[in-house]
Amino acid sequence: MDSVNLSVDAIAELAADCLRRHGCNDENAAAVAAVIAAAERDGCHSHGLMRLSGYVAALDSDKVNGNAKPNVERLAPAVLRVDGDSGFAPLALAHGRGPLIESASKNGIASLALVNIHHFAALWGEVELVAEAGLCAFACTSYKPAVIPAGGNKALYGTNPIAFGWPREPGPPMVFDQASSVMARGEVMLAAREGHELPPGVGVDAAGEPSTDPDEVLKGALLAFGGYKGSSIAMMVELLAGGLIGESFSFEAEIRDNNDGGPPQGGELMIAMDPNLFGDNDGWAAHCERLFAEINAQDGARLPGDRRYANRARALQSGVQVSASDYEKISKL
Amino acid sequence: MDSVNLSVDAIAELAADCLRRHGCNDENAAAVAAVIAAAERDGCHSHGLMRLSGYVAALDSDKVNGNAKPNVERLAPAVLRVDGDSGFAPLALAHGRGPLIESASKNGIASLALVNIHHFAALWGEVELVAEAGLCAFACTSYKPAVIPAGGNKALYGTNPIAFGWPREPGPPMVFDQASSVMARGEVMLAAREGHELPPGVGVDAAGEPSTDPDEVLKGALLAFGGYKGSSIAMMVELLAGGLIGESFSFEAEIRDNNDGGPPQGGELMIAMDPNLFGDNDGWAAHCERLFAEINAQDGARLPGDRRYANRARALQSGVQVSASDYEKISKL
Repeated sequence: MDSVNLSVDAIAELAADCLRRHGCNDENAAAVAAVIAAAERDGCHSHGLMRLSGYVAALDSDKVNGNAKPNVERLAPAVLRVDGDSGFAPLALAHGRGPLIESASKNGIASLALVNIHHFAALWGEVELVAEAGLCAFACTSYKPAVIPAGGNKALYGTNPIAFGWPREPGPPMVFDQASSVMARGEVMLAAREGHELPPGVGVDAAGEPSTDPDEVLKGALLAFGGYKGSSIAMMVELLAGGLIGESFSFEAEIRDNNDGGPPQGGELMIAMDPNLFGDNDGWAAHCERLFAEINAQDGARLPGDRRYANRARALQSGVQVSASDYEKISKL
Repeated sequence: MDSVNLSVDAIAELAADCLRRHGCNDENAAAVAAVIAAAERDGCHSHGLMRLSGYVAALDSDKVNGNAKPNVERLAPAVLRVDGDSGFAPLALAHGRGPLIESASKNGIASLALVNIHHFAALWGEVELVAEAGLCAFACTSYKPAVIPAGGNKALYGTNPIAFGWPREPGPPMVFDQASSVMARGEVMLAAREGHELPPGVGVDAAGEPSTDPDEVLKGALLAFGGYKGSSIAMMVELLAGGLIGESFSFEAEIRDNNDGGPPQGGELMIAMDPNLFGDNDGWAAHCERLFAEINAQDGARLPGDRRYANRARALQSGVQVSASDYEKISKL
């Protein structure tokens, strides 16, 4: 397949230019473009340029406000809320991140509720930025129904990822980000696009029958990872990113959504903790490195995120390969 | 099998009496006995009277301080720490719970770090008590290595349960509590005791080969639920209940432990959030009931914890059946 080599900056410019042409102001376009470029940089193509057409559709249908001005409020000493003004999530996150870090560094633990946003990105980038500030970070978000509650028969939960980041010095934080479904919806979309079969046990078709055809599974539903345990985590995410903060559950987001292919309105919750305020102020960093060393010492085991950092180093050195057809499609957008 | 019918109070008295005879003062004995009785009451026999011999062993070997005086400190506005004075966890929890609830109700979110404790109980009872105070509650704890990191070959993580509770009115909170292993170690112990085989995929024997024999798996290791995703959660628990708060990782707890059969020294982390301080102060409770109704409306799906509450209602009405041989064994202790 013919492909084009683009630098990470060039990807961000390409995406930002496209978003501006569809009604984003500079600030909103840059925030979304940075997230897309970071996904391509880290080899997470399911959340990279592939999502641009969905972002564009949501701007064209006026579902998303391309000129959103997020507003940060303090609801309690350790609770911040950003109203995203119906914009894409990245700018709301950019506004809330500093206050979250400041509050966690003062109170030991703090929480950031994001409402009235449209979330379409991977979570790892968000917890990574908070963990880089020296904090332990957690984030979760819901979407539209895609996952069946354990024992049930109909999609109710979103794929509802949770992400967790742990600060390390020197070097980037340890970060994992995982959907509550066996496979992330973005990966199923990628398999559909590339014509790959899915492994068994990932999902069911519209009739509720097990299927390995990604197109059929996209019309049907996904299964939670690890049976009822993954299902409990998906439910917890609904409660944290919806019920707790006064935003939609996935099933409500679907009812409200115009199904233009872009992200529905939804919520996100972040929690940050400062390890310097939990009792092992001088020792925690070196102590945790001993755990990471034990993991790395086992043949075949690796720290979550390591593959992403390897991709990143390669992309910053030699750029990212984007397929010629994708490049053309985006240029037309 | 012959069995004895005991009221929940009688179980608590039996356990407390036994613990006092082995060196616990009244306060410590009552705290542990209440946890044992609650487990039997809720049908969670793997954490009930079955654990008493382990508690006794840890007192007899002087590993655990039966006269522990837990000390509560505030490390930051929203961070509390209890030093358990090398006692069993329940009394430390009882001392920390009130300050945690107070801090979360003031700051919106707060955290409780428990160190220098010996944890042997299920977590659901702990989050249930915080959720009953109207808060959203999370708890996690590590133990001794039992679970293999994904891709690796040696037990490194504890079974590392996480528990989550959500307040509901009227009625008890929604609570789930799940090990990071496919099956909890307590359930494997119960299967070994009762001579049941394990389902495939639960664990491996000491040689690292898959096994369905619970005795062999207890000598070997357990697998994380949902592959690498459950493994990430087990790692997160090590970081939260160990690294963050300055307590042992599971692999360190094992090195330090005297292997008397009782619980090793370890840590626990709790987080509580007040839904009245997250922006949907009047609406969150009714809103979340709509999610629960959607789950219950699906044939075969149910809310986590519902089975436990049904067991509880039965036990409070008609008592708990304890096998005659167990009863005799405990009476001898």
